[in-house]
Amino acid sequence: MTGMTVLYPIIGLVGLISAGFIYLSIRKIEVKNPTMVDISEAIHRGAMVFLRREYTILAVFVLAVFGILSAFITIQTGLAFLVGACSSMLAGFFGMKAETRANVRTSQAANESGIARALSVAFSGGAVMGLSVASLGLIGVSIAYILYTNGIIQASDINGFAMGASSIALFARVGGGIYTKSADVGADLVGKVEAGIPEDDPRNPATIADNVGDCVGDTAGMGADIFESYVGSIIATIAIAAAGSSAVLNITEENKLTYILLPVLLVTIGLIASLIGVGSIRVLKNMNPAAALRTSTILSAVLMLAGALLAVNSLGLELGIFGAIFMGTLSGIVIGLLTEWYTGGSPVRRIADSCRTGVATNIISGLAVGMQSTAAPILMIAATILVAYNFAGLYGIGIAAVGMLGTVGITMSVDAYGPIADNAGGISEMSGLGKETRSITDSLDALGNTTAAIGKGFAIGSAALTALALYSAYAKTVGLTSINLIDPLVVVGLLLGGVLPFFIGDLTMSSVGKAAFAMVEEVRRQFRDIPGLMEGKAKPDTARCVDISTRAALKEMVLPGLVAVLTPVIVGLGLGPTALGGMLAGATLSGVLLALFMANAGGAWDNAKKLIENGYLGGKGSDAHKAAVVGDTVGDPFKDTSGPSMNILIKLMSIVSLVIAPLL
Amino acid sequence: MTGMTVLYPIIGLVGLISAGFIYLSIRKIEVKNPTMVDISEAIHRGAMVFLRREYTILAVFVLAVFGILSAFITIQTGLAFLVGACSSMLAGFFGMKAETRANVRTSQAANESGIARALSVAFSGGAVMGLSVASLGLIGVSIAYILYTNGIIQASDINGFAMGASSIALFARVGGGIYTKSADVGADLVGKVEAGIPEDDPRNPATIADNVGDCVGDTAGMGADIFESYVGSIIATIAIAAAGSSAVLNITEENKLTYILLPVLLVTIGLIASLIGVGSIRVLKNMNPAAALRTSTILSAVLMLAGALLAVNSLGLELGIFGAIFMGTLSGIVIGLLTEWYTGGSPVRRIADSCRTGVATNIISGLAVGMQSTAAPILMIAATILVAYNFAGLYGIGIAAVGMLGTVGITMSVDAYGPIADNAGGISEMSGLGKETRSITDSLDALGNTTAAIGKGFAIGSAALTALALYSAYAKTVGLTSINLIDPLVVVGLLLGGVLPFFIGDLTMSSVGKAAFAMVEEVRRQFRDIPGLMEGKAKPDTARCVDISTRAALKEMVLPGLVAVLTPVIVGLGLGPTALGGMLAGATLSGVLLALFMANAGGAWDNAKKLIENGYLGGKGSDAHKAAVVGDTVGDPFKDTSGPSMNILIKLMSIVSLVIAPLL
Repeated sequence: MTGMTVLYPIIGLVGLISAGFIYLSIRKIEVKNPTMVDISEAIHRGAMVFLRREYTILAVFVLAVFGILSAFITIQTGLAFLVGACSSMLAGFFGMKAETRANVRTSQAANESGIARALSVAFSGGAVMGLSVASLGLIGVSIAYILYTNGIIQASDINGFAMGASSIALFARVGGGIYTKSADVGADLVGKVEAGIPEDDPRNPATIADNVGDCVGDTAGMGADIFESYVGSIIATIAIAAAGSSAVLNITEENKLTYILLPVLLVTIGLIASLIGVGSIRVLKNMNPAAALRTSTILSAVLMLAGALLAVNSLGLELGIFGAIFMGTLSGIVIGLLTEWYTGGSPVRRIADSCRTGVATNIISGLAVGMQSTAAPILMIAATILVAYNFAGLYGIGIAAVGMLGTVGITMSVDAYGPIADNAGGISEMSGLGKETRSITDSLDALGNTTAAIGKGFAIGSAALTALALYSAYAKTVGLTSINLIDPLVVVGLLLGGVLPFFIGDLTMSSVGKAAFAMVEEVRRQFRDIPGLMEGKAKPDTARCVDISTRAALKEMVLPGLVAVLTPVIVGLGLGPTALGGMLAGATLSGVLLALFMANAGGAWDNAKKLIENGYLGGKGSDAHKAAVVGDTVGDPFKDTSGPSMNILIKLMSIVSLVIAPLL
Repeated sequence: MTGMTVLYPIIGLVGLISAGFIYLSIRKIEVKNPTMVDISEAIHRGAMVFLRREYTILAVFVLAVFGILSAFITIQTGLAFLVGACSSMLAGFFGMKAETRANVRTSQAANESGIARALSVAFSGGAVMGLSVASLGLIGVSIAYILYTNGIIQASDINGFAMGASSIALFARVGGGIYTKSADVGADLVGKVEAGIPEDDPRNPATIADNVGDCVGDTAGMGADIFESYVGSIIATIAIAAAGSSAVLNITEENKLTYILLPVLLVTIGLIASLIGVGSIRVLKNMNPAAALRTSTILSAVLMLAGALLAVNSLGLELGIFGAIFMGTLSGIVIGLLTEWYTGGSPVRRIADSCRTGVATNIISGLAVGMQSTAAPILMIAATILVAYNFAGLYGIGIAAVGMLGTVGITMSVDAYGPIADNAGGISEMSGLGKETRSITDSLDALGNTTAAIGKGFAIGSAALTALALYSAYAKTVGLTSINLIDPLVVVGLLLGGVLPFFIGDLTMSSVGKAAFAMVEEVRRQFRDIPGLMEGKAKPDTARCVDISTRAALKEMVLPGLVAVLTPVIVGLGLGPTALGGMLAGATLSGVLLALFMANAGGAWDNAKKLIENGYLGGKGSDAHKAAVVGDTVGDPFKDTSGPSMNILIKLMSIVSLVIAPLL
């Protein structure tokens, strides 16, 4: 198989072309209702304006870092960084294009043809994102692999590719998170609470921004996050293999290339498995939607594992490596299911019950559930590390992460389906498509919430494992045999690293607060100054709200981004490589804990509110419901801004450390 | 000075006798108003019932652990454990006795003689606790030292003393925290919100329980916490010295005893300095109360540092050791002041401002402030570690902690003054002593809130440093030269340790929720079933509420306690000493971060509410005030139950590890 390396980028290209065909098949569907066209155009425009302005700012950052890397590391690393950054931006762009075209068509399909067709359109939109992420990642790393085997670049140069992906991810996640929640909170606070109009009402000037937010936060942000984990896990595994032998595996100069090849081959198999999974939805679309998505995901995972077993065997590698891959795949699934339980099972009922005694008890019980929810996923990650290491050393930890992320083509497709269904619901409401249509989009949206919860858990789990893999790669690359916790420098690093996620948590939550406040003022102003708006006789100035969110997101993403990129450099050069190792461990630990705590508390509050809205404890308008709404609002920045930022923070810090390793 | 070792326990005894005289001087004051006698008797009875029942349960636990330690470690360790546990219980008992006698007399002094006399009585009550803690600790460790120098026990046996103190501390802190907040939240939810009666109104059946809660949580719980840090830091330093030479200090078999003596000598000096500080209040009492407390604290610190310099010099030890002591003392003061700023400075105004847009934004900004507040104290701790280590190796970290805690006699006195002033306010209100008296007790109470904030910061900072010292002692005692973060077992330990504080946070918050709910039901029942209660014609059944809090606290403290004691044993024996090392590091990191986050968020919410109650943004009854009340209620278990539990958790886990070190 080592001779067939040229095949890998070609398979990546096939994936990308498939995504292109799916996109065209969506565009081909004609939207007939002019109101729907208007609304979807507004969302599309808002999303594209945000992307353009975001990428303009990022271009400056990317070029600056390219220059620095080229000067201080190698020009090849700088170029790899550039390609990684561009790939991530491209994936985000493709995903957003598809999402803003698929949303309105899902709405139309729900109206005209029913749930099966609507599911199919929404999933197709998601698949464009999923396949783009997987394919662009594969093309990048496989070309890098070919350049490396031909002696054109060093193995360490490839790290630049992951750093490029990571840098974009941070800004996309933080910026997207601030965007979506400032719009959401702003729209809700005035719309539902003060003006007394329902969600997604066309009179509310912030609704378009709210729907754009779903795209830029949940699609582009999540896509960049997963793309980063995907690329990061592959490159960490390559770096560990390149650093040579371990206690468990016998990596020699002769067989090293095989170990380096395996992660690339594995994701190639994963992409093929994902393509089959995506295709299977056409067959499965008449099943209940939840079952259809689940079946296709499991199908892909099983196919990839079968291929992995074959690959490990035919490359003549230790069978234990397959054990590590299997454990990684299993772990991803289990963590996803745990998240689903915490944000959908009995903890949600416990939170809903606490709404009986008011807001305070609702907040307390939500925070308690969030704290509780950290334990099981951490135990799963710990078990994965132990098993993977025993099977295949540090390489096992890396390849387990790759195993978890191998079928990203399908998992990301399922994930990106959610915001499309959410948008479709908004468009149906704003266009007045009637109760029946809304009930179809509601049920697709509810499924989207479940897949989003699973997706979030998966994103955290994969980030944790990827960060640990990158961390191992860092230690191996710097040539550290010990990061000794008895050494006070390491303890100091641990403390500094541990505090960073809290600091970023504060920054991002405060940003949402500020931006939401500006949004509230603007919406109030429009209701006051635009005559006839409340009566539905005049149109709101939605572009202004879009602009407020855009500006706030772009302004507020800069500081967290710089903190994440610069602290490893400062600590590494100032206190040395072992202190930096301690810092990475501290940041990963507290970052993963906060990510789980915040994401799950937020998700559980959200669903407790939905439970009450569905009639529990008196339903909408009851005192319990009012308490639940507050919990949901607190949970919004928790689950969609600050929590997800942690994923990127820990990966980005690790990859920056890996890239600057030659300087230490 | 090594020849005068018999003097140390005698000085401890002098401290204890001074505390006794102060207590008698309080009791001598006759309470004239029969209503006040009744109320104070009810509080006293409630507190004593709680202590008796708590100590009955603890006796079983203590005897069981005594047996286990005697069987598996040494009988001497078991005995040391027993003495440590009894000392902690005794300190708690003395403190509670003094508090429940001083509260009513403070109230009377405020009514009859004005603020200076009231301050003096309240502070005397606190001083009984402060001096008891310092003296009992000194007597225990100095006698252990004498037994050790005479070859009767091993240095490692002394660890049992710290473990005894720690075990009691955990139950006292967790039980006390659950007690005080279930009563507080229960009283507030029904009293203020539903029945519309003010705080501490005699018609509310839960007010007595609420006031008992101030004693058992803020006095006994805090006292046990500080006692544990005090004893733990001394013993960690002894253990480090006993383990022998280090990179920085040249500890030989000949001079080892001098290094072991220093911490004991240092706290002896600290106790003398504290006695002078306590006495100085008599001279300073006509100053403004805040200035008086501050002056006496600083006076003691300066005296102790002067004595420390002298001691280090005359013992012929390296001067760098004094540098470490100085850094520890400084660090304790700075962390206290940082806490005061976060719970009293501009962050509080920021939270109050966020109440304008409702509860949700208030909660979000409080959580953000809590996260932000972790950074500066952690940087201070990190700086202390670096400086202390550079001056005097691992021994420096231990002795810095002792330096921070050396003047515990005065810092704990100031701290224990707070709940007495709080109680005095409650008694004045319940006895109808009139506006003028209430205004005096209010101003003393406000000062108490400030000292409580500083005390909480100090408790966290000292817990962190003590835990790190114990951790170093553990590593040295087991003979580990490396706890390597590249070793997956250590990473697994780190992850498991990191999750424990979140788990304990969940348990304790949920316990408060459950207990508060039971209290709400009972208060509602009494208002419903007792005719004339609302009109003030009938008396509420306060004993029943006291019983509910007592039962809940005792029941709910067991699980967190067992988790903290057993996990180090299980991980140490199951995964080995390096994994246990990783676990301690993980637990300390995430425990300190959560402690700071929760304590400061809670304190800031509390003071934001007070700011609004003092007229900001419309004052009491405004919408902003309603939002602020919810934030305060969420903050209650944060700052008084879950946050403080972390301090003990991290110390207890470290000390248990140190004690079981011979088994590993």
